[in-house]
Amino acid sequence: MLEKELQSILHEEIPLTRSMGLSVNTVDTNRVILTAPLEPNINHKCTAFGGSLYSVAVLCGWSLIYSRLHDLQLHSGHIVIQSSEVNYLLPVDGTIRAICTLQDPEAFDKFTKIYKRKKIARIELNTQIVFQEKIALDFTGQYVVHY
Amino acid sequence: MLEKELQSILHEEIPLTRSMGLSVNTVDTNRVILTAPLEPNINHKCTAFGGSLYSVAVLCGWSLIYSRLHDLQLHSGHIVIQSSEVNYLLPVDGTIRAICTLQDPEAFDKFTKIYKRKKIARIELNTQIVFQEKIALDFTGQYVVHY
Repeated sequence: MLEKELQSILHEEIPLTRSMGLSVNTVDTNRVILTAPLEPNINHKCTAFGGSLYSVAVLCGWSLIYSRLHDLQLHSGHIVIQSSEVNYLLPVDGTIRAICTLQDPEAFDKFTKIYKRKKIARIELNTQIVFQEKIALDFTGQYVVHY
Repeated sequence: MLEKELQSILHEEIPLTRSMGLSVNTVDTNRVILTAPLEPNINHKCTAFGGSLYSVAVLCGWSLIYSRLHDLQLHSGHIVIQSSEVNYLLPVDGTIRAICTLQDPEAFDKFTKIYKRKKIARIELNTQIVFQEKIALDFTGQYVVHY
């Protein structure tokens, strides 16, 4: 799946991502990078609002699942976030850059097998927001995909 | 603190809250209720985007701390979210309504005492998004306030 295609889908399906200036930077088999400029996501301390950081992170995992299911020619169905744990480690006073890397491709294969068979499956993904080469936010989300 | 006053502060300090249509419904000593309409926060399934639900919830706790410190004539300093755990229990296909209730006023008194003495303090708050009388999102956030 191409970056531009995924970006159009995000902007179309979740209009708030347009207000946030969300961009799809990279879509690989095992990695998605999303970015958003600071300005529309700024808070009172001139750093990124915690809700914006969270939103970019949750969409990064969502995008990894969506693009991979698309590339595998599987119906992307409903991808929903079920639960998450977030640690804010450093403030971000520049571009928000979220990276979701598939740490365990075997777990993803297992997830797609279950999804094909049961039409519902669950997967945990980790996304990090990296700023000035340091982890600024560590996000772990449990996603459910169903027909 | 009045609802209108808090709403102006939120809209001024975090511009994305204007795009989200965030409103302050209630500010009591022990409770803050924030709302946001579905439309600007909608997702591809015509329910509220998980990032919007999170943002309203995180701001509900923030608002409770801010308004209470203000009423106690304490400097509100920097209120930042440090970590959170979120469970999405039901989809929300109408107005987002977040309620943060101070379950333990004694813990808040302890928090303000520490804040006055050390100029930094930490507090955990729970916020729920309630839709059709059911809990749709359960959010627990650890906030840090410092000068």
